[in-house]
Amino acid sequence: MKQKDQTDNLNISQGPLPGSTKIYVTGSRPDIRVPMRRIALSDTIDEEGVRHNNGSVVVYDTSGPYTDPDYHVDPHQGLPKIRQQWIEERGDTTRLSEQSSEYGRKRRQDTSLDHLRFAHLNDQPLVGTEEHPVTQLYYARQGIITPEMEYVAIRENQLIDEIREQYPQHLGESFGANIPERITPEFVRDEIAAGRAILPNNINHPESEPMIIGRNFLVKINANIGNSPITSSIQEEVEKAVWAIRWGADTIMDLSTGRNIHETREWIIRNSPVPVGTVPLYQALEKVKGQADKLTWELYRDTLIEQAEQGVDYFTIHAGLRWQFIPLTMKRLTGIVSRGGAIMANWCTTHKRESFLYEHFDEICQICARYDVGISIGDGLRPGSIADANDEAQFAELRTLGELSRIADKHCVQVLIEGPGHVPMQRIKENMDLQLDLCNEAPFYTLGPLVTDIAPGYDHITSAIGGAMIAWRGTAMLCYVTRKEHLGLPNKDDVKEGVVTFKLAAHAADLAKGHPGAYYRDYAMSKARYEFRWKDQFHLALDSETALQYHDETLPAEGHKEAHFCSMCGEHFCSMRASRQLQKRIEDDK
Amino acid sequence: MKQKDQTDNLNISQGPLPGSTKIYVTGSRPDIRVPMRRIALSDTIDEEGVRHNNGSVVVYDTSGPYTDPDYHVDPHQGLPKIRQQWIEERGDTTRLSEQSSEYGRKRRQDTSLDHLRFAHLNDQPLVGTEEHPVTQLYYARQGIITPEMEYVAIRENQLIDEIREQYPQHLGESFGANIPERITPEFVRDEIAAGRAILPNNINHPESEPMIIGRNFLVKINANIGNSPITSSIQEEVEKAVWAIRWGADTIMDLSTGRNIHETREWIIRNSPVPVGTVPLYQALEKVKGQADKLTWELYRDTLIEQAEQGVDYFTIHAGLRWQFIPLTMKRLTGIVSRGGAIMANWCTTHKRESFLYEHFDEICQICARYDVGISIGDGLRPGSIADANDEAQFAELRTLGELSRIADKHCVQVLIEGPGHVPMQRIKENMDLQLDLCNEAPFYTLGPLVTDIAPGYDHITSAIGGAMIAWRGTAMLCYVTRKEHLGLPNKDDVKEGVVTFKLAAHAADLAKGHPGAYYRDYAMSKARYEFRWKDQFHLALDSETALQYHDETLPAEGHKEAHFCSMCGEHFCSMRASRQLQKRIEDDK
Repeated sequence: MKQKDQTDNLNISQGPLPGSTKIYVTGSRPDIRVPMRRIALSDTIDEEGVRHNNGSVVVYDTSGPYTDPDYHVDPHQGLPKIRQQWIEERGDTTRLSEQSSEYGRKRRQDTSLDHLRFAHLNDQPLVGTEEHPVTQLYYARQGIITPEMEYVAIRENQLIDEIREQYPQHLGESFGANIPERITPEFVRDEIAAGRAILPNNINHPESEPMIIGRNFLVKINANIGNSPITSSIQEEVEKAVWAIRWGADTIMDLSTGRNIHETREWIIRNSPVPVGTVPLYQALEKVKGQADKLTWELYRDTLIEQAEQGVDYFTIHAGLRWQFIPLTMKRLTGIVSRGGAIMANWCTTHKRESFLYEHFDEICQICARYDVGISIGDGLRPGSIADANDEAQFAELRTLGELSRIADKHCVQVLIEGPGHVPMQRIKENMDLQLDLCNEAPFYTLGPLVTDIAPGYDHITSAIGGAMIAWRGTAMLCYVTRKEHLGLPNKDDVKEGVVTFKLAAHAADLAKGHPGAYYRDYAMSKARYEFRWKDQFHLALDSETALQYHDETLPAEGHKEAHFCSMCGEHFCSMRASRQLQKRIEDDK
Repeated sequence: MKQKDQTDNLNISQGPLPGSTKIYVTGSRPDIRVPMRRIALSDTIDEEGVRHNNGSVVVYDTSGPYTDPDYHVDPHQGLPKIRQQWIEERGDTTRLSEQSSEYGRKRRQDTSLDHLRFAHLNDQPLVGTEEHPVTQLYYARQGIITPEMEYVAIRENQLIDEIREQYPQHLGESFGANIPERITPEFVRDEIAAGRAILPNNINHPESEPMIIGRNFLVKINANIGNSPITSSIQEEVEKAVWAIRWGADTIMDLSTGRNIHETREWIIRNSPVPVGTVPLYQALEKVKGQADKLTWELYRDTLIEQAEQGVDYFTIHAGLRWQFIPLTMKRLTGIVSRGGAIMANWCTTHKRESFLYEHFDEICQICARYDVGISIGDGLRPGSIADANDEAQFAELRTLGELSRIADKHCVQVLIEGPGHVPMQRIKENMDLQLDLCNEAPFYTLGPLVTDIAPGYDHITSAIGGAMIAWRGTAMLCYVTRKEHLGLPNKDDVKEGVVTFKLAAHAADLAKGHPGAYYRDYAMSKARYEFRWKDQFHLALDSETALQYHDETLPAEGHKEAHFCSMCGEHFCSMRASRQLQKRIEDDK
């Protein structure tokens, strides 16, 4: 037994979600098995007692093998490497004899860390040959449809063809997005080739289930996890990741800033079926004991390689914060509120020179191209208050993000563009329009935006308002915000609530855009509601457990799950009950 | 002692909010004393240790005398009758020798109810003389500025002139709203005269502090309370009302459907400093034991008078649901989801005739004009699901609401127009535009709208998203939704959370419209945040208690209230800390 201490008693949330079955849809080859969640619906029983079958609905499933009852979860083993074969088949990668990062090797050799280390560590990471990038963007430009692309095409469709007739689609307003009725592998390839979507999948994270981020696909959400110098352990972080995906996180970002970041990340990646993002600068800063002026390009470069070889799928890199923009922030109310931004601004100011991230962006892209790490070009100058929204500093940086996205594009490196922040509602549109224009429709990935500053303790809501609005206008992925934002570190309940809140915001955006993969769930829910199929309502809910719990607070008896009312209005004042009686009467009168 | 049983141990939430002082701003006469809440801010201490005074900010205060430490709260006495003198001075009302409602008299004479009855019951309600309406709308049309109008002008300004220079206003987008820099009593009068705003203040509710609802004023929110056949007592309902206004509810609606509705309402009104709304149809239905077909105009009329003489400030009346519209709902997924709508549709269908509310709308207006009860024209056909949004049934009714608002206008009765419901984001604009157009800018009062159906347990959020958006576009008041919506009856915590959630949505809309009474609080909050004035942040928050509690979960020590970081990022990763150090260095370098 190597694992002791913190990692020994890993309790991981597992088992199917209520009323749901894990299914796999097979693609053109048997090892393309796309997981989905099928929610069985109970029958409608009409006034004559005749049963009508409601079938089932299939929904997007981010939860990985953890919700598959046939799968034995052992976090010490890590998840199955479902992409290994596809990566190797391409024949454009080689296995290293050891990690190429100096820091990675040092940690590996440090036996005092053995008790923390993931047992089945891969000491021989993959790297792309120097001949060409090994990125999905490169393959797409070659006209190749990879198994990953086919996988996401199947995944995005959610078997909608099964039920399309049953749930008539309503008209959306998409602000120029181009969402097809049916997602084909060719469409996926074309969107990636155009740089309008990214499929973040590091070749060293073969455990991840392919997914796609782009405005012509379902809106995605990210959950941040990670330890902090103040609190939390490896065990908590792994469970937080699994917990976040259980409730719907499409990617997770490990923003650890505490101790043993390297080892914690290994555990997270090996057990994560969703892409994992990081901000490598945080770890680089830890390596220099928090002294930003000690940061060097060499140290940062080694950190990129260290993380790329562990399998990080995308890096947030604040390369758009240029030295010359810093004076623009002096007029601000809240200065620089991005951690990475503040670190780099301090570096530039101390050394009186241009950011090494900006200067070495070409080299950064070369590294990323060899592992297929996506770059989420960070907005170090995002506004941290309503007062600073859409100011000169923010938009100067956004123009640079556009410039950098074109450099990445040349290297066939996939990119996301990060966005604000705190923005009042009337200034959201300008953010989205400028981003689409300046960054050539590269996927926008925003934090909120929060539409007011005055509700600490409720910032999951202030940000879900802005998030829903900007996602409707074209943002491809929303970074969740929890109710602890601005106040402290979120706990497990906060993480769940944050994830569900952003799922509903993302879904509201999909609905408004007229995405074919959105409307049917609302329809099925409302039909169940009108027919008092309570259990179906719970199962169709984004958070079944909470819906059930709230219902049962006042009416816990099993019989009330079939009652034609609830405690909100009571029996005589249930409008749905009255409305059903009315409809029957009108039918009878005919 | 008359009060026993349920009413004896009334525990009412009272005392100032954290860091806040109750102040009163006096108008042109000494008895116009407008309550506000002043939040004292601590000093900024600069790098040299020099203190800079941040003064204070004044915010809108709905909490009534309960937050005044000099006031002795005794729910058995009820609140001071601050408007009594103004009403009597106008000399256009007479005092009745007894209640004119038959039901009211019957309840009064029933000694078995004595233990439930409010002690200082007014047996001689006021009624307007027959000469002219006694409504604020009538006075406004006569060119009169009432003390109530002056009161709301002072109230809406929030002493902004004290601090205007300090907090530069940002540019809003108001979609045609016309919000002045400074609200004058003349402006209030003109807005009321135009029917663009209502000042709901029944002459029999002299305890209420005047407030105004209209798109050119601060966005208001309503909280629903009321017992249900399933649960809750008088005690709980009074405390729920006081609790709701403590956190910011601008009006409350008593939607009781259980026992002793009449007596419960008396307690609520006598202790409510905010306008109280009801749906008289609910009580009428109770009177016929839930059998909608037994409802008659005479019974309903008596109920209106009963409630008008108790002091209800506005009635929701579903008069727009005409007989001919009912077939339009047969195509719907979720039929009729308004309780009042479902009751009236059943009545029309049973009796095969036009709604008595529609037919007697003129007479309803005559009654309301004699007490200054506002009419909130109900949307009995609001959509109850995304599928039914903006359908023929809904908009047929909306056209009728416009027609009815013109009838009310002739009678000088103040009106609100009620709106949806469940509406996906892309269909919100049409709702607002049509309402403004069809109802001649009469204030819109919406329930949400909820932007998706699939998040039961989180419908305070799905509705806050739609609420913020529609309020930005011109809705004057939002009806709150709690997380228990569709599932059960909210408890006290749910009520608070619902109120705060809708305060933030309303505030986000004010901000986006560029309302001068919104921006400064965000500014003050963000300045406090950037300067690590933690206590100021808590005090400026919409929910100070929760913000403090979340902060203290990880850093409870008193010293951490001055720390230049929090547990979210820790000391070395606090971007605000780093940004401040940076700004100092740049300043020093100059």
